[in-house]
This record gives sequence, C-alpha cells and structure tokens, in this order.
Amino acid sequence: MSKIRIGIAGYGNLGRGVELAIAQNADMELAGVFTRRDPSTVKTATNAKVYSMDDAVSMTDDIDVMIICGGSATDLPKQTPELAKNFNVIDSFDTHARIPEHFTNVDKAAKESGHLAFISLGWDPGLFSLNRLYAESILPNGKTYTFWGKGVSQGHSDAIRRVEGVKRGIQYTVPIESAMEAVRSGSQPELTTRQKHLRECWVVPEEGADLAKIEESIKTMKNYFDEYDTTVNFISEEEFDAVHNKMPHGGFVMRSGMTGDGEKTHQMIEYSLKLESNPEFTASVLICYARALARLKSEGATGCKTAFDIAPAYLSPLSGEELRSKML
Amino acid sequence: MSKIRIGIAGYGNLGRGVELAIAQNADMELAGVFTRRDPSTVKTATNAKVYSMDDAVSMTDDIDVMIICGGSATDLPKQTPELAKNFNVIDSFDTHARIPEHFTNVDKAAKESGHLAFISLGWDPGLFSLNRLYAESILPNGKTYTFWGKGVSQGHSDAIRRVEGVKRGIQYTVPIESAMEAVRSGSQPELTTRQKHLRECWVVPEEGADLAKIEESIKTMKNYFDEYDTTVNFISEEEFDAVHNKMPHGGFVMRSGMTGDGEKTHQMIEYSLKLESNPEFTASVLICYARALARLKSEGATGCKTAFDIAPAYLSPLSGEELRSKML
Repeated sequence: MSKIRIGIAGYGNLGRGVELAIAQNADMELAGVFTRRDPSTVKTATNAKVYSMDDAVSMTDDIDVMIICGGSATDLPKQTPELAKNFNVIDSFDTHARIPEHFTNVDKAAKESGHLAFISLGWDPGLFSLNRLYAESILPNGKTYTFWGKGVSQGHSDAIRRVEGVKRGIQYTVPIESAMEAVRSGSQPELTTRQKHLRECWVVPEEGADLAKIEESIKTMKNYFDEYDTTVNFISEEEFDAVHNKMPHGGFVMRSGMTGDGEKTHQMIEYSLKLESNPEFTASVLICYARALARLKSEGATGCKTAFDIAPAYLSPLSGEELRSKML
Repeated sequence: MSKIRIGIAGYGNLGRGVELAIAQNADMELAGVFTRRDPSTVKTATNAKVYSMDDAVSMTDDIDVMIICGGSATDLPKQTPELAKNFNVIDSFDTHARIPEHFTNVDKAAKESGHLAFISLGWDPGLFSLNRLYAESILPNGKTYTFWGKGVSQGHSDAIRRVEGVKRGIQYTVPIESAMEAVRSGSQPELTTRQKHLRECWVVPEEGADLAKIEESIKTMKNYFDEYDTTVNFISEEEFDAVHNKMPHGGFVMRSGMTGDGEKTHQMIEYSLKLESNPEFTASVLICYARALARLKSEGATGCKTAFDIAPAYLSPLSGEELRSKML
C-alpha cells in the first residue's frame, strides 16, 4: 500500500512536531515543508525539502494531506479555507468562540473543490472536546469541569514580556488541586475562575528595573491576570534558560454525574494529559487524524469535519479485525 | 420528533440500570421489559410493563432498539444473534477473547435480517477500549496499561462463595498505587499480575467454620487468587450487609508514550472511572449508544459494529452546530 503523503504548511514548533511524528508512523511520508519565509533559511529537523508556500499549488498531485501549522489568531482563518481549495487539509484552530465561523468557511471551500478538511484538532479543542462529548452523552445529569496545566500559556507569556522592565518571561497555568479534589468528591461545586487556576510567572528583569512595579503591572493586568491569584518570581537569565526552556502542558476533563433511582449514585469520569511538549503532542494528534482523513477521503467524503464526526477506528493503522481482537 | 423506543431483554441489575437511564434521556422511552421468568414475578423500578421473552417477536414494530442485558458466559452468545434476527440490538458482551467470534455471529444475523447491532459496549470493553485506541493511535511509540478497581468482581465473589464454610463473600479488585505511579513517571515498567492489583476479600463465615482453612483455600485458589496478593477479612453478617451492599467499580487506562527528536519527550494520557454503581454506569453507556444506533440505522447501516466504528457525534442529543459551538 502506498504511503500517505503529508505536506506541512508553516514551520514553527508545531510544524517541526509534525515532521518528527511522521517518522513514528510507517504508513506516512513527508512530501514537503511549505513556508512563507525564504525556504533557504528554514532548517528542518530531518532535512526535509522546504518549498515556498507559493509553490504548493503546483504540487497538489504529490500531497494527500496538508497539515496547516499556523497560528489561530490570523494565519488559520485565512490559510485553511484558502488551502482547502487545492488540498485536503487539517488544522488545529483553537479559538473556541470562532470555531463555528471557521467551520462554515472551510466547509464551503472544501465542498466546492471536492476536498476534505478536518479543523480544530489537537487536545483542546480535540481530545478534551471528545471527552466532554462522550462523558456528557453518557451522564446527562452532571457537571463538566476542564482544568488546564500545569503548562505554559503562550498568550500569557507574551503578555508578561510586554511589561516594561521584563527581559525574559514565561507563565505557567496551574490547576488548583483542592478544586479538583472537590470535583472528584461528587459535590459538583460552582468554581470561580480564581478557584480553578493559579498563574505562576517567572521573569528575568532588565538590569536596574523596578521589580515591585513589574510585579504590580503583571498581577493587575486586565483579562490576563486580574481574575487570578498570580505569583511573580524573579530569576537570573541562566536559571531561566536552564529550567524554563520547555513547553509542557496538559490538563483534566472531569464529568461528575448522577445515575439510578432518585439520581443518588455518583459516577466520575476523568481524562487527563501530562505533556512534556505541547506542540509535539498536538502534532501527534494531527498526524493520526491525517490517516483518518486519507481513509474517509477514499470513501468519498468532502467538506469540513471535526473530531466529533470521525469514527475512532479510522485513526488506527490496525484493521477492524485486529482492533477487535487486540484492543476491544 | 418521535422518541426512541427501547426494549430491555433480561431484567437484572443491568436491565434495571437501563430502565432508570432511559428516564434521564428526554428523547427515549421504554417500550417494555422482556424476561424468561414469569412476567408477573418481575417487579420493575418504574412499573414498566413486563412481557415474556417469547412475546418479543410479536412486538418488532414497537421497539427501535432492544438492549440485551444478559450475561456474557452463556446468555449473550445465543441471545444477541437470535434477537438480531428481529431487532436492532445492543449488548455488553465482555468476554474479551471471544469477541471476534461473537462479532461474526451477530454480524451475520444482523446483515441477513437487515438490522443493526452494537456489541461489547460498556466501559471495558467499551470506553476503556476507545481510550486504548485513541491513545495508541496518537502515541505509536509507547506502552498501554489498564488497571481495574477499586471494585467488585462478580466472578471472584462467586468463587469465594463456593469455598466451604463461607456464608457470604465479596471480593474487591484494588489497583496498586505504586504501580500506577511508576507508570505515570514515564519509566514504562514491566509489571507482573501481582504488581498491578491486590485482591481484597470480605467473608461472613458459617458458624463454627475453620477460618484458617477458608483463608488458605481462597488465597491458593488457582486462576482466581494464586497469582495475586490477597487479603481475607472476616466480618459479621450485619457489617457485611451495611458496608458491602453496593457494586462500585472503575479503573484506569494509561498510555505512556515518547515523541520528538530521538523520542525523548514523555507524553502521558490517562483515563479513569470511579463508579459507585457498575451496572448503572454500564447501562448509561448502553443507552447513549442506543441513540447512535437509531441514527445510524436511519442512515441505512446494518450488520455489527463496536464502539470503534461509531463517530462520537452520534451519541449526543445535540446537533452538529450545537456540539461545535458548545463542546468543541
């Protein structure tokens, strides 16, 4: 059987993760990396061939699935519908509030051109969404909780770095253990934003900077930190580089539900991820959905789909018989 | 929209759980309970109408989905293919080694009669299987661990009760915390049967029974206890009735995998259930798959399917638009 030929559109941490994940899947191969930068300036992890994004359209016959690794703020809303005109595409669009609009745009482009598109894959949206859906369908009388972390939030880290006097900065979102324990107890607590997560900041200050002022500026920053208990820690650049050079993340989806006579029986479903590398894990999710896409496309599917629409068996390299005998 | 009409074939703890779960789902209604006993002797939780199993075949037009609540050892291998001749059916067949054979038999009966059948639903097989499949597809380089408990094993409880001198008995399977911690650490340990689970027994002895002999008989029982560390606790009948009158269960599916350059990045996926009632939870799973069955059937599907073959969106009462805006 011929391999699934993957294109990577955009080469940052996620694109690099996809490149490395392809090597873990014997039924896939990398057809090329596409960049808006000068291709000669992009050095890939496996010496993959790098092309200009403008040349992609001339390679439609060489690529079964294009995985779009741009950002959700400005890249994906344009790139995914645009690339869906010429390719089957997958993205990790994660601006939850704008998913319906993104779905409509991508669905239209993909249907008109006869392509298949999967959007909003990764772990949230993605695996966490799947777990919310399964758990809420099984336990209709209950309450769902999502906790994130411990992990690096890029948005909050960027916000710290914009504060005057900050040379380097990183922010970890930390789920509050006592809140998770309250959920596990079955009490179905109402939790405020402050009760669910802490924000932990590590900052390398510029020489001579006013540390108290930096701390105050961070802790009171609207939308980012003011609704949370926030800690600000000042460290040296050496320590920063040694300790805070990774992109860990993770989180928890919990469903606390009641069943039975008088709905008095407590049932608890919990799903969690503990990831040493957020982009590498997200890439691994995208790659196994590329397998599902290739199969669904060969069955004639077109338009836009999400994780909700894809039967689990499509993700695995194993056959139906193998899955039933080994994994069921 | 008309409601999905559910039949319950077999009325034990699971059948009762299905009856109660129907009441939690506004799009379903109970069409009838079917029993091999004298219907007049069966008292249901919600005063549902009870029929003889022999009368089921005359009610094919009144039932959209028949949920078969028999045992896996002898009931389901016969009942599911037999009922699939006249109904769309769902079962919770859980003898893992015999699933392929059961699938073949049910698939044949369902295809010949134009019905749709879902088998081996519940939490293991079922939700745990789904989690093994998703996790192994995402992290191909890794190791999967399944732990069960803390919970009541019917098979082991039955085995205790067959020991001479035992009046009442119950057995809890207990996952060993240190083994789970070793898995979470990313060390991918090789764990023996003894290292993964303890077996905890609670026994009410007959008057004058030889306690030392009971304990020895249990601990050395082949296939059931000899490969485990087992504790045997003797208690009064009053304590037994007060404390050990429930059917809790649960467990953990863990996937420890490596990604990235040189596969050095550890990624951990964990799914767990903590159930106060095993049969009520299993029933809740069956009922939401009844919704999926009714929808897939209306699209023309026939034959046998498992949880692997069913796209998650089919389980939810929400529309695709609602799911994307609320849950993705």
